Formats: sequence, structure tokens, C-alpha cells
Amino acid sequence: MTTLFNDPASFMEDQLAGFLDAFSDRLHGVDGGVVSTAPQPSPEVAVVVGGGSGHYPAFSGLVGPGLAHGAVIGNIFTSPSASRACSVGRAADNGRGVIFTFGNYAGDTMNFGLATQRLAAEGIDARVVVVTDDIASAEEPEKRRGIAGDLTVFKVLGAAAAEGLDIDAVEAAGNHANTMTRTLGVAFSGCTMPGAEEPLFQVPEGHLGLGLGIHGEPGIKDVPMLRAEELAALFVERVVAEAPAGAGTRVAAVLNGLGTTKYEELFLVWGTVAALLRDRGYEVVQPEIGELVTSLDMGGCSLTLMWLDEDLERWWTADAYTPAFKRVASALPAGTGARTSVTPQAPQAEIPVAGETGQDLAARVRTAAADLAVLLEEKSEELGRIDAVAGDGDHGRGMLRGILAALAAVEQVPPHAGASQVIRAGGRAWADDAGGTSGVLWGAALEAAAATLDDDADSYSAQDAAAAVRAFQESMQQLGRARVGDKTLLDSLVPFVETLEVAVVAGDPLATAWSEASAEATRAAETTRDLRPAVGRARPLAEKSLGTPDAGAVSMAMILHRLGEHLR
Amino acid sequence: MTTLFNDPASFMEDQLAGFLDAFSDRLHGVDGGVVSTAPQPSPEVAVVVGGGSGHYPAFSGLVGPGLAHGAVIGNIFTSPSASRACSVGRAADNGRGVIFTFGNYAGDTMNFGLATQRLAAEGIDARVVVVTDDIASAEEPEKRRGIAGDLTVFKVLGAAAAEGLDIDAVEAAGNHANTMTRTLGVAFSGCTMPGAEEPLFQVPEGHLGLGLGIHGEPGIKDVPMLRAEELAALFVERVVAEAPAGAGTRVAAVLNGLGTTKYEELFLVWGTVAALLRDRGYEVVQPEIGELVTSLDMGGCSLTLMWLDEDLERWWTADAYTPAFKRVASALPAGTGARTSVTPQAPQAEIPVAGETGQDLAARVRTAAADLAVLLEEKSEELGRIDAVAGDGDHGRGMLRGILAALAAVEQVPPHAGASQVIRAGGRAWADDAGGTSGVLWGAALEAAAATLDDDADSYSAQDAAAAVRAFQESMQQLGRARVGDKTLLDSLVPFVETLEVAVVAGDPLATAWSEASAEATRAAETTRDLRPAVGRARPLAEKSLGTPDAGAVSMAMILHRLGEHLR
Repeated sequence: MTTLFNDPASFMEDQLAGFLDAFSDRLHGVDGGVVSTAPQPSPEVAVVVGGGSGHYPAFSGLVGPGLAHGAVIGNIFTSPSASRACSVGRAADNGRGVIFTFGNYAGDTMNFGLATQRLAAEGIDARVVVVTDDIASAEEPEKRRGIAGDLTVFKVLGAAAAEGLDIDAVEAAGNHANTMTRTLGVAFSGCTMPGAEEPLFQVPEGHLGLGLGIHGEPGIKDVPMLRAEELAALFVERVVAEAPAGAGTRVAAVLNGLGTTKYEELFLVWGTVAALLRDRGYEVVQPEIGELVTSLDMGGCSLTLMWLDEDLERWWTADAYTPAFKRVASALPAGTGARTSVTPQAPQAEIPVAGETGQDLAARVRTAAADLAVLLEEKSEELGRIDAVAGDGDHGRGMLRGILAALAAVEQVPPHAGASQVIRAGGRAWADDAGGTSGVLWGAALEAAAATLDDDADSYSAQDAAAAVRAFQESMQQLGRARVGDKTLLDSLVPFVETLEVAVVAGDPLATAWSEASAEATRAAETTRDLRPAVGRARPLAEKSLGTPDAGAVSMAMILHRLGEHLR
Repeated sequence: MTTLFNDPASFMEDQLAGFLDAFSDRLHGVDGGVVSTAPQPSPEVAVVVGGGSGHYPAFSGLVGPGLAHGAVIGNIFTSPSASRACSVGRAADNGRGVIFTFGNYAGDTMNFGLATQRLAAEGIDARVVVVTDDIASAEEPEKRRGIAGDLTVFKVLGAAAAEGLDIDAVEAAGNHANTMTRTLGVAFSGCTMPGAEEPLFQVPEGHLGLGLGIHGEPGIKDVPMLRAEELAALFVERVVAEAPAGAGTRVAAVLNGLGTTKYEELFLVWGTVAALLRDRGYEVVQPEIGELVTSLDMGGCSLTLMWLDEDLERWWTADAYTPAFKRVASALPAGTGARTSVTPQAPQAEIPVAGETGQDLAARVRTAAADLAVLLEEKSEELGRIDAVAGDGDHGRGMLRGILAALAAVEQVPPHAGASQVIRAGGRAWADDAGGTSGVLWGAALEAAAATLDDDADSYSAQDAAAAVRAFQESMQQLGRARVGDKTLLDSLVPFVETLEVAVVAGDPLATAWSEASAEATRAAETTRDLRPAVGRARPLAEKSLGTPDAGAVSMAMILHRLGEHLR
């Protein structure tokens, strides 16, 4: 929701003041909006974009060399008045006339239309270029709304103006860009106006609204939620089906986020969109993926294509430098993109042949690894819930990812390898794939344990097992720099190792000693409920975690317990 | 929430593939992350940023000339493994060594630390520069987490490397930048991992979490929600209180949005932050306001200051060109920012002195305007609710804004003016301040009605009133290009005007005729429930609006009814 404001009624003015403060080196506030203060080597037709606020970077973030000369700003989702448009138009005019350009909404059309009449009465040649890219909003192209296609049309207008064309030619360029631009959008959730209790609309859970509006208008139709690749396919199919007459195969593309649909999600969708466009024979020219025309905190996204000809491609790719849209070809050194060198690889060692006993132990390790994967699959969610109380909730997921990577690696080690090699490979894979804190600790500790085992030994004793887990513990302690009582996995591991060693020294069989030690570990994990994490470690959320055991200590105890079953 | 994904388990890989597709002209994917393909005129120390994903533009969006040479990417909110770091480090190395730089989290510290050891064993000089900017996370500076201060430290490292400094000097520059950087953050709402049902944490309604973490760690303390200017004051006070030793008065600033706290909100907060910093004698150098280090769809923001000396300022302001962070000084023509010309103003006409009858009518118009403001204040919410069914819910707010602006303007017209001048001024102000569709329609229609009145008339008849409302109606009809039955305000206005004219022609007194006509308007507004909006008008949401009357028709009827009370 929209959370930050002073008085909701002055939201537009307040945000505009902060925006102008941030860009006072290049923009100037005037009644009704902003204009660029960049000098023009020779006077250009003034491109003035506009509409309501709540759509940043549309509209004020698109003012600067190569794009708009000014922006008229209305209240949230509300067309600015004709007077405001006139004021910005007058300030932006350089003697070559003004083109107002905006999405096709009744209020904008009327206000900007009135503004052109008033400016004409003052002797300023003013025109409108209306953006009508939203294919979901009407059958007839001229009745369609303007959404993220604003960007492609504005960009072409700005570039054509920067080339020094006259107002007729710039207007024609903008109208041509609009004719060649198509967008389809979807919404996942509504946006909330400053000070409002409720979003303007809601999309039913598990659904998406097809054909979103950028003013909180709900979609045309709610359909069940799609996977990212299904959405990408829908976008490409529907937008391409509306290809304008005379469409070629080179396209500009904008994958636009509405506000809460974030960058990684957009890139993920883009991966499929790009592939599908290529499958259809298209070549995408300088795609833009990100938040370009937003709708406050709305969830949703849209795909815009502009079919290019030679002129449109030159205007689309031309340099522009505004607060939110920057393309400067010369900023990438010549030769960027070319890459001939091979990525260097780490040196690989060969895996030696182990003795028979070592190979036998390796087989038992493989079986145990598979069993631990089953265990962690079962427990992943529970561990995530425990970790979420004072952490980031990724423990269960990370452990599962680790054991699955280890299992895959272990199964690729040749059968002639001993347990040491198998555990080392598993540890390395665990650390590599799981990442995170527990990943690196488990990986390094497994490697340390592996290093204590002799793959050519004739037999393995309970003492050997105790030495391996001791090395495992010491590695974790050293790398993690934690102590018992710090509310970490050491709180179950250390009591385990100590109990095991005592029992082994006392002559207990390994299975018995292990069982006793793992019961101790389980008890110890439970008592971490009463601990606060040591200050200065990853998350100093001492109080919040009181009453919840440490997820790492719990998973450690679970695993140690399960391993015991493989000793019987 | 995070809505778009294919398999949550492959979220990182899938989004990275799309990202690399979009930037294949300048970035190259390697095991573990990405590297820049920009050639280096002379070899630079490689700055390799990294950490988990979910923070875009951190980390892959910061790779390019003048900033990072590579980024190591982990799973969501999870440190990448040492192997991944080594792989990216090897690919980014240009023979002058590698600096890994990342926020201070246990997993990152361990994995990047291990990576430096492994690379050293391969003959590559590798170092770490750890970011510890989060003042809320610990007392001792070296134990603090790294959050949005990542950006200032990375930027300095990239610029120092681009200057050709050796690895000791680049490392020292980065550590110095970190020493001079402080951040405080707040969270308003948690973020949701791909595929998760629930956010990682929740901030209680009406509260904010002070001291957010960027991995879904809840804040250190929940406090009652603040107004934007109170939050700005809190940020400035707490961050400035932690000013490092040797701090001057020139600062770099980053006001960072976490994901769902949007641009306009950030600019609004920035307005106060900038003013407060100036009050304290600070000069802010090239502030960055936007989403720079995010946390999926988390609500929240943070303020980062880096106290500058001559070196840090040069590195902070140096050119950089990455997917998400671009500064190119030469892109702004010389002289940009200077602005000496006066903003042109529209010509103003003088207001003539009206006759006594005209002045009397003007007084009654003023009283009626004040009364309509009371009415619309009462009805604003109800109208908004009606409008929200198929529109953007702004009708009540827009009407209220309009009448308040009109009232203010009407009261500034000199007392010698006639009703025509008063209504004209009110109409102009209504359109200017309300903006939007209803604003322009009401404004233009009031001006049209005003034009029918003679301020020097000796008396006004019922016929004069009917002629004024007829002009009012025709103006709306012409400008809005709607017809009766299109589900607009005309559906109550047109029956009103027709009924009024018939009654006036029949010789009814104006009060009686008006009362009859406004009852008809109220009935007609109600029947718009059964209408669908005409296709191609602002929001073609025909089916959704069935069963709900048109908000404009309802407000028109309300106003006409209330005006009737002023005729008795």
C-alpha cells in the first residue's frame, strides 16, 4: 500500500517538491509540472508528456535530453488541467511549437485538447499525440487506452525532436510510433491511494486480471493465475496477433512492472518472452525490462512491442538521458559484447582407487545420503518455519538443496572411490549448491571429516568415527566463529561429539554410543529455546528468537539421529 | 508477493537467464554469476560484488564500466558458495587481482573468505571489502550488517579500480568508503519468497519495523507508523548521530526503496530529508533516490549517507554505466541546470464592475458554492465507492477538490464583480485544481453557463436560468462527446434540463420548476444502474458496472438538488 505521505491531499505537490530537489541540476519546476534545463544547441520542437501522478517514472522521470522537454503533472491518477498543460507548454516551447503526448483517457484528451486551443490563441503551435497501445481495452485501435506504450511513443517523439525535425514531422513520427505499438497487461493485485484503507480493486486470490488499467481500473477479465512461462506465452501470442499492418520482424520491447512485480520476476518472464519472439522470427532491439509506467503499488506487468522500421529503430535506440531513462551509446567502450576468451576453470584432481573396506564404507555413505535427502524433504518446511521467527526462513530450503546436491555428486563419484572421496565430493557440492551460512559450514565440515578417513584402511573403528565427527565439529567452530551458547548448530553438535567420545572411550559399540549421543543432541537442540543469539552474528534479533529453538541446532540433531539408524 | 515464477527452486537460475538475455550486448554469464564484457583500456583490479538474489539491482544490475566487473549470484537471500565466487573471480580477473565486496552476513563472509583462499592457491590475489553500514544492527561498527550502503562502497571501489589504482589502493578506498557510510532502514511489510504462502515476517498494522534487514529479517523494534516528514526526521537524526570520525559537511545520499515503497513516496520523503540535511549545514552531492538494494516485494526504505572527502567525492560522482546505475556527465550538455529566463505567464484580463442585480446574484452564487462544498465533503467517500466499481475511485475526491478550488477562487473575485465573472472564476479554478475528466467538464461547463449571463442586467428570469443550464449541458456534451445512455453525468443532466425547460415555458416559478427537474435528475441517476458504459470511453468495463449507477450522474443529481434549496 501507499504508506508514506504527509497529507494525502498534497501528495502530488509534496512528491514533486522532493523530485525537483533531487534533480535541481537538470530540471526546473514550473506551474503544473517540470521542464528540462538542458540547453538545446539548436531549438527543438518541445515534447511535453503528461498525465496524473502515481505512474513514476512516467511522467516527470522521462524529462531530459533526447526524451521529453517537459512533463505536466496531475494529482494521483487524475488528468492535469488545461491550465497546467498550458503553463508547462509555454515554459517548454522553444519557438518551434509544442507536442502534448499522453495516454488515451477522457480527462487527458479533453484537458490537453483545450490546452492546444488556448496555446494557439497565444500564438504557440500546439498538437496532441495520443497513445492507444492497450489491445485489451477496445476493438477499435483509436478507442484504446494508453498504458506502457507511452514509453515507446514518447521516446520516438523525443528522438525525432532532438534530430531537429519540424513540428509536422515530429507529430507524424509520434503518430507512426503509436500506430506500430501494442501492449497487453495483467494485474495481480490492486493499488492503494495515499490515505486510503483499501486498494482500489482486488484480484481474487489465485487469479490475475487480464487487461489491466494503470489507474487502478481492474482487468477486463479475471483468469486463474499462470506460471511465468505461461504468462510469457500469453503475452507474446496476443500481442503478436495484433501486429499492425506493415509490421516487419525487428521490434522494440518493453516488459513493464506495475509496482510490486519486481525485477527478478520480470527478468524471469523476459527469458521466455525473448525465446518465444525469436521462435517467431523476431529480432528484439534494446529491450527495456523494469518499472517504466507504474501504478503506485499495483502488482502486475505488461508486454509492449513496437514494430520497427529504419526511422523508428534509429529513434528508439538514440541516446536519452533523463532521471529514469538513460541510454548513452558512447558509455560502453568499443568492442563491448564481444567475448572470445574461454572462462577459466579450476584445476581438477583425479580420484584414486580405494581399498575394499573403503569402497564398502563409501557404499554405506551413499545409502545414508539418500536417506538424509528423504528426511530433509520431509522436514524442510518445519525447519523453514522455525528459522523464520528470527531469521530469513531459508534454513529448510537451504538444507534440502544442500543434501540433494551432495546426493547427486556422491552418485557421480566412480564406484572405485573410498568413503573419504565420496564425502569430500558431497561436501563440496553441498556448499556449492546450497550456498548460505549452513551450506558453507556443512560443506567445509564434511570435507574436514573426509580428510580424517583413510580410504586404504583395512577396517574402521568407533574411534575413527569419533575422530571424523570431532574434525567435523572443529571445522564448523573455526569457520563459523561461534561458541556453545550462541544459539547455533554447535549447541547440538558439541554435546553430541562429547557424549560420543566418552561412550567410545568407555568401550561402547559405535551404534550404542551414537544413539546415546544423538539423544543428547536432540535434548540440547530443544534447550536452545532459552538462548539468545550472540550479539553481532548474522541477525541480532536476540529477543525475538527467545522461545524458539535454533533451526540449525534442530536440523543437526535430526540428521545425527537419522545417521544412527545406519549404524545398526 | 512474489507472483511470477516457474519452479520456485529454479527461480534464481531462471531470472538470471532472462537478465543475461536482456543484457547480452554487455554482460556474459559464467558459472556462479555474470561478468562485464566491456574491454578495459588498461587492465583494472576486478571488483566483484555479490550475495543472494532478490535484491536487484544488487547485485547483477551493478555490473558495467565504472562499477563492478562481475557479480556472484546466490539463491534468493542466500549467500553464493565459495566455488561460485571463485568462478566469477577467475573470469573477472584481469591479472591485477580481485576484490570481493558484499554485505556483512555470516554466509557471505565465510564463502567469500574461502574463495579468497582458494584463488590465492591458484595464484590470484584476492581480497574482501565487507560493507557494515546498518547502524541498527549492532553497536560495534565492525559487527554491523550491510544494507543499502552496499551501493556507495561498491561505487567507490569501481571508480577507484577504473582509475587504474593497484589492489592495495582499491581495497583501501573501499574500506574507507565503508568507514564513512551509515544507513538506517525501516520496514512496513514483509516480503514473500517465490512459492511461499506467507510473507517471511509481518509488521503489525499501523506500525513500522525500525532497523530492517534486507533478507526478510524483521526490524529490531516495531514502532507506531510515522508521517513521511516524521520518518525523514528520524532518518536524518539517527544517521547523523552516527557520523564517523573526520566527517565533513559534504555527503553522498541514497534514499533506497525496498520493493513496494514507490518512487513518489521516496521523493516525498526525500523532500524533507534534503531540507533537514541543509538545515544541519550539509551539502548533498548527487543523491540517489529509488530502488537500489531491494528485498523482493518488501515495503520499506532506508537512508544512507556517505561522508565525502575529495577522493570519495570524485569516486562517487565518477561515470558508471550498468544495467541499473548510470551516470554519464557528458550526457548533460554544458550549461544544464542554469536557468535565467522567467517562466512565461498567460495574459490576465481585468474584472469589470457589474450592476447591482449582477452583484446580488454573485453573492447568492458564493453562498451556494460554499453550501456545495459542504455537500461534497459529506458525499466524497460515497461517490468514490460508487466510482471504484468500474472506475478508478477518484470521482468523490475530484469533485471535492474541484468545489473547494472553485470556492476559494470565488471568494477572491472582487465584490464588484457580477455572477458571470464569479462563476467563470469558479469554473476555471475547478478545472485547474481538480483536473481529471469531471474537472475539465465541470470547469468548461461552468464557464459556458457564465457566458450566458449579463452582469449588467436589471433582473434575471427563470428563462435566464434555463438558458444557463442549457449552455452548461451543451458544453459538457460537446467536450465529453457522450450521449444520453452512455452512463455518464449526462444521464441525469439532460433529463434535468428538459424538465426544467418544459416547466419554465409552462410558467412555473423557477423554484418549483427546478425542484421538479432535480427530482427527475435523481430518478434518472438511479436508472443508470441498468446501463453499460459506451464502448471506447475511458473504461470499457461494461459488465462490471452493471448494477451500479454512474458516479458522475449521481453527483450531478445531488448538486442540482442542493442548488434548488437556494432558489426558495
